[in-house]
Amino acid sequence: MIMIRSIIRPEKVDSVLTSLMEAGFPAVTKYPVAGRGKQRGIKIGEITYDEIPKEMLMVVVKKSDKDYVLEIIMKAAKSSNTGAFGDGKIFISEVSEVYTISSGVKETEAEEVPV
Amino acid sequence: MIMIRSIIRPEKVDSVLTSLMEAGFPAVTKYPVAGRGKQRGIKIGEITYDEIPKEMLMVVVKKSDKDYVLEIIMKAAKSSNTGAFGDGKIFISEVSEVYTISSGVKETEAEEVPV
Amino acid sequence: MIMIRSIIRPEKVDSVLTSLMEAGFPAVTKYPVAGRGKQRGIKIGEITYDEIPKEMLMVVVKKSDKDYVLEIIMKAAKSSNTGAFGDGKIFISEVSEVYTISSGVKETEAEEVPV
Repeated sequence: MIMIRSIIRPEKVDSVLTSLMEAGFPAVTKYPVAGRGKQRGIKIGEITYDEIPKEMLMVVVKKSDKDYVLEIIMKAAKSSNTGAFGDGKIFISEVSEVYTISSGVKETEAEEVPV
Repeated sequence: MIMIRSIIRPEKVDSVLTSLMEAGFPAVTKYPVAGRGKQRGIKIGEITYDEIPKEMLMVVVKKSDKDYVLEIIMKAAKSSNTGAFGDGKIFISEVSEVYTISSGVKETEAEEVPV
Repeated sequence: MIMIRSIIRPEKVDSVLTSLMEAGFPAVTKYPVAGRGKQRGIKIGEITYDEIPKEMLMVVVKKSDKDYVLEIIMKAAKSSNTGAFGDGKIFISEVSEVYTISSGVKETEAEEVPV
């Protein structure tokens, strides 16, 4: 399985969650974070804000769904057609095992078409 | 080393933390998250709640302790003997290095019995 | 790419963020967590505090920068020259892909010297 972590603008959360739901990926874990990017904060008038509020969205999907889900998030999290600094980052990493607590069942990639 | 992330019901946190402590695994990192599962939220009367408050528990253990710790968490996080939707998920992933800041020491799997 | 997660004392966050910035690693994601370590909480007078507030700092760097960034964090997060219980932990894990949402560009290890 694959974990996709997206650090996005808070105002884009609804858009991403809706897009994921419509595409058949309702399961998301979300929490607020503070981010400092390569831009080293943002300057508004005289004041520099070092850390910008962001939201972390975590989804775990099958390997075969990775590129599709990535595309959905990228599209919905962009602040315009061209994108803007501060739209955020996506980190993809491997998850070796996934369990559902209620059933005790270990999820597999079974429905995935073998490569 | 192995990272075990459990997204559980807030009311089960004490149960899981106590069980882990008693089993000799006191070290846990915890933070609140919001979750949306395959059930796409929960309906109470007329109102649908899209996101349910959960707690994320993160523990890092040796490979040889993984299955034991997994079992402890699964048991303590279940809402009843049969479990219920919304009890949560457990994600297991690999951690390549672990350091203790105070000593600068890198933790190893040394005490682990070789396979 | 490599993800470095540091669970540190809240009062050390500024020190670590400044050190990372000065070393050319401004990009950091931060969020508050509660931690229970091997010391099983802290006792102040008659009261035992089970969970201590900590801050989680997440940075993603190239493999070639890993040891350098690790050293920076370790040094800046230590509570004194000798360190003290509760200074925290650092977990290092692999990230398979990194994307910048605004540009859609996938980051690579291109500048890295091949091993």
